Amino acid sequence: MKKLINDPDRVVSDALRGIEAAHPGTLRVDHGNRVVVRADAPVTGKVGVVSGGGSGHEPLHSGFVGRGMLDAACCGEVFTSPTPDQILAADHAVDAGSGILHIVKNYTGDVMNFEMAAELAGAEGIEVASVVTADDVAVADSLFTAGRRGVGVTLVVEKIAGAAAEQGRDLTAVTELARRVADGGRSMGLALTSCTVPAAGKPTFDLADDEIELGIGIHGEPGRERQRIAPAHELAGRLLEPVLADLDFTGAPVIALCNGMGGTPLLELYGMYAEMFERLTSAGIRVVRSLVGNYVTSLEMAGCSITLVRADDEIIRLWDAPVNTPGLRWGR
Amino acid sequence: MKKLINDPDRVVSDALRGIEAAHPGTLRVDHGNRVVVRADAPVTGKVGVVSGGGSGHEPLHSGFVGRGMLDAACCGEVFTSPTPDQILAADHAVDAGSGILHIVKNYTGDVMNFEMAAELAGAEGIEVASVVTADDVAVADSLFTAGRRGVGVTLVVEKIAGAAAEQGRDLTAVTELARRVADGGRSMGLALTSCTVPAAGKPTFDLADDEIELGIGIHGEPGRERQRIAPAHELAGRLLEPVLADLDFTGAPVIALCNGMGGTPLLELYGMYAEMFERLTSAGIRVVRSLVGNYVTSLEMAGCSITLVRADDEIIRLWDAPVNTPGLRWGR
Repeated sequence: MKKLINDPDRVVSDALRGIEAAHPGTLRVDHGNRVVVRADAPVTGKVGVVSGGGSGHEPLHSGFVGRGMLDAACCGEVFTSPTPDQILAADHAVDAGSGILHIVKNYTGDVMNFEMAAELAGAEGIEVASVVTADDVAVADSLFTAGRRGVGVTLVVEKIAGAAAEQGRDLTAVTELARRVADGGRSMGLALTSCTVPAAGKPTFDLADDEIELGIGIHGEPGRERQRIAPAHELAGRLLEPVLADLDFTGAPVIALCNGMGGTPLLELYGMYAEMFERLTSAGIRVVRSLVGNYVTSLEMAGCSITLVRADDEIIRLWDAPVNTPGLRWGR
Repeated sequence: MKKLINDPDRVVSDALRGIEAAHPGTLRVDHGNRVVVRADAPVTGKVGVVSGGGSGHEPLHSGFVGRGMLDAACCGEVFTSPTPDQILAADHAVDAGSGILHIVKNYTGDVMNFEMAAELAGAEGIEVASVVTADDVAVADSLFTAGRRGVGVTLVVEKIAGAAAEQGRDLTAVTELARRVADGGRSMGLALTSCTVPAAGKPTFDLADDEIELGIGIHGEPGRERQRIAPAHELAGRLLEPVLADLDFTGAPVIALCNGMGGTPLLELYGMYAEMFERLTSAGIRVVRSLVGNYVTSLEMAGCSITLVRADDEIIRLWDAPVNTPGLRWGR
């Protein structure tokens, strides 16, 4: 294992020191609880938006903390759920009395621990609502999940819920919007290589020089099947077909995320996006916003995923609303 | 070679189709010349800011085209200089009669071809100034360079010159600023792995499982020496020492870029930045702005580099000015 780290056991806490040093005006870090908090939280009159999960998927979630997106992100160990205590600490840090939305990827540990934290917060009089993302069409259940896994749509849910909360909407409205985005999103990914979890010290799995894993999860958990590598235009079809078979994306504006798994260069991602865009356009699907890059990652894994989200005018306006986080940043 | 591509010979043109599809409001693509042009260029009354170089370093340069940064980027084949014809086409596309600044990384082919294009443009009555970046302290000359190589500071020069041009400053002022930034920047990088140029089909070099290449260039050209891998805090020192020995960074606000070479995850980059920031602070260096991520890359190479830039209040204001490009985007 060759990595830019000090010690496998310190990877997450070292990264948190770095994110704190790099973004002092945007966020602060509660090192004891490993929670990244928006610098000016709690924001009076605003619903708190909290997410989190295992580390190793950066910029998801810690890189999406800031104005217009998350109020706090709880950072578990690499590919390991944060504990209820961490999540409760995040809730305390952002609670402004207007309620809190938990955005949770559908992994058994995450769902359980966020639920437990919500109960603890509820017992203290903090109103918590939850939205679980489960957009990965690859497998019905998986190693870490009952039901579908939550992947790329999580970024879009965090952006839309964050923008709605920033505009002062109440918990019911923010939750409804987050659920609408989650329900309208589908994803599918593939891997060219495994990643190496620092604490494990060796690759999670092995792929031959001409093999891909289709339907990979973001923790190196198995996908649908191993296949021979093929040209980008063919791979784009293999990713899009199950997504389009699962939900009708015609007749609505669509947000597309062509996501790298961490180790794939932009040159390849843009090439993949070209193929995807062409197929979508031919299928009569109207992509109105797109994001291409390494956003929902699996350490240094090479590969990519596609996420499509059925949007509407309101969702597009919230997507376009200003955001100021390390990983997603734009003004008017 | 396992890559998300159609054909090694089509990698650049395929990526350009993707960047065009993903960013329609921001840029347009001249596919014949492989030039990415700001959507609303030429902008009346504005100095044109043009850069470019070999592909494979994305988001540099094509990802930095847009309001507040580059007016055009010329995309050569992977790790190959763009031709004078491409550069001249870029000049034509952005020329608004207020002159053009070429920002050129110090590689023999780039310097020669940008010079030739500047002469051709000059013969047509277009005023062209040039700034060459040569910030890499690793080696005096290299495989592709007489003098030092131009690397990370190029991003900062493009941002500052782009912001100054956006404010309507004239060619002399924009050029002076770009030169000031270039003169005040120093970089040093290291690689954990090689990258594979698609047309070559195999890694440019090999490193053992416990080896790093210190002082690597962004084309896989050799650095200073091969060393044993070490903990992040030790590697941070090996990168910073030659940078700090080369230029005095005390007594001025500093912009720091902790850059990934393309295949290094953010978790590791933030860990490295934590170590760098601590060392810089201990050395009395005041980092006031920082950027952590994969910005000046070498395909899927794992590794990182540090770039420090001596700034001043004017440069900081221009750094903070709004920018709207695929790779760097922020508002007020």
